Amino acid sequence: MREDCGMTKIDMTNALRLPAGSVDLAAFDPRATPGLPEGEGKEDGYKRLAELDAELSDLQERLFAAGRSNPASAPRILLVLQGMDTSGKGGVIRKAVGLVDPQGVQITAFKAPTAEERQHDFLWRIRRALPKPGMIGIFDRSQYEDVLVARVEGLVEPEVWQSRYEQINAFEQESAESGITIIKCFLHVSRDEQAERLQERLDDPAKHWKYSPGDLITRAHWDQYQAAYRDVLERCNTEVAPWFVVPADRKWYRNWAVAQLLLEHLRSLKLEWPEADFDVTEQKELLKRLS
Amino acid sequence: MREDCGMTKIDMTNALRLPAGSVDLAAFDPRATPGLPEGEGKEDGYKRLAELDAELSDLQERLFAAGRSNPASAPRILLVLQGMDTSGKGGVIRKAVGLVDPQGVQITAFKAPTAEERQHDFLWRIRRALPKPGMIGIFDRSQYEDVLVARVEGLVEPEVWQSRYEQINAFEQESAESGITIIKCFLHVSRDEQAERLQERLDDPAKHWKYSPGDLITRAHWDQYQAAYRDVLERCNTEVAPWFVVPADRKWYRNWAVAQLLLEHLRSLKLEWPEADFDVTEQKELLKRLS
Repeated sequence: MREDCGMTKIDMTNALRLPAGSVDLAAFDPRATPGLPEGEGKEDGYKRLAELDAELSDLQERLFAAGRSNPASAPRILLVLQGMDTSGKGGVIRKAVGLVDPQGVQITAFKAPTAEERQHDFLWRIRRALPKPGMIGIFDRSQYEDVLVARVEGLVEPEVWQSRYEQINAFEQESAESGITIIKCFLHVSRDEQAERLQERLDDPAKHWKYSPGDLITRAHWDQYQAAYRDVLERCNTEVAPWFVVPADRKWYRNWAVAQLLLEHLRSLKLEWPEADFDVTEQKELLKRLS
Repeated sequence: MREDCGMTKIDMTNALRLPAGSVDLAAFDPRATPGLPEGEGKEDGYKRLAELDAELSDLQERLFAAGRSNPASAPRILLVLQGMDTSGKGGVIRKAVGLVDPQGVQITAFKAPTAEERQHDFLWRIRRALPKPGMIGIFDRSQYEDVLVARVEGLVEPEVWQSRYEQINAFEQESAESGITIIKCFLHVSRDEQAERLQERLDDPAKHWKYSPGDLITRAHWDQYQAAYRDVLERCNTEVAPWFVVPADRKWYRNWAVAQLLLEHLRSLKLEWPEADFDVTEQKELLKRLS
């Protein structure tokens, strides 16, 4: 099995990359497992997730090292997680992001804006949360809420949210030019699977805290949210900040897929260990004298 | 083996708790393994670390849930990590803290104060980094640097650092009263082991980024730092914010010991899952109608 795994070339980036152009969300099966070799299932998914840990940790440490040694030129990564309630943003952070050293991760969960945040442009709080050099930033929800919940719940006038797609594209372009690799994941859960997960949260007292009556109000607007997501995916899918549609009905697949995406993007940075900015031989001598 | 583990009662809190009174650091063996049952070694340490993961994750989730549901009354935990260079503050965060959901952890690494930080009292930046309700805060270095490096390197006048012990005690008392459980760990590494670890960093190009010529300057002041640590341990070892002396020459022991300490402190909070603040039966009905 291990030998088979090693020989099968996984390319999650291509498997999940949303093509440019018009989007029909109904064409994406939330139970599909793109990128997983034919015939593989849940156990293989767990195994693959466990197997990528070592390389992911190594590459993340190289990224972190670059941030320490050359902050001005060090790359940064931003993983944006969007999806309907129960699609598993928290699960991905726990199971996939949780594989890497927590010192190299900056997680921001965007809730309803605070009084202070509302006094600024909608991108103000987003900019402040961008990852520092050498860090992997994780957005649990993001700037996209301002064209999703803001639109569906009518929190702002249509002219306002309509102008935001271009603002977001400009912002992401600017962020990419400043050295941030942007990976945007839409966790695509089905309406039926959401019902099951909400039911689980209601049935299990240990999960009540995750439930809010507001979840049902959002669920009642399912179609409007899907339409809003379709526009997001169509209008903000650029070369520098592409969308990946991650089928999310199978948790094991979803977690592995996002971890694999992160790994492939880290690989593409071709990170080397930073060169010493001191004289190694001299320091060895000094250490000997001090021992 | 598993059965033996289950039967041996581990009490790391008592094993590592520094008694009140005068401190003689030379009396603590950095290679000792207090709290580990007689006859156990490295493999048992790894095993025990892996075995506490499930309970640690469960308790951390309860803590996080409390923070979400009742922020005003939710407990908070602060783990302070201090120790000489190479004592393993980063290793503990990666291997022990890394076991829990990164969403529930707030890590702050305190470096030399910035220009802005220097314009404030030394505790200003510390207060700002205190964990939010339901969170586990991790301090990689802390307020104690202001009576360690500040003292040894003469960054401030003696009157200034001498007055800080009482200020720190008052601050910690106040923090504890606000609901923060404070766990302070001194990672106790020997001078010889530090030499080996610095040598490793010099020998391995993948570790050069962790090395700084400043490390040798600090090493040259070893005895002064040990004296400064002794005063910290003697003067700031209170009931509400006790010190734990963690032998740190064996990495496997050090990581397990800190994870176990964290676990025992989480247990002592006796965390229950929050009660639903909505009518569960009513929500189940509503969900059925919306399915």
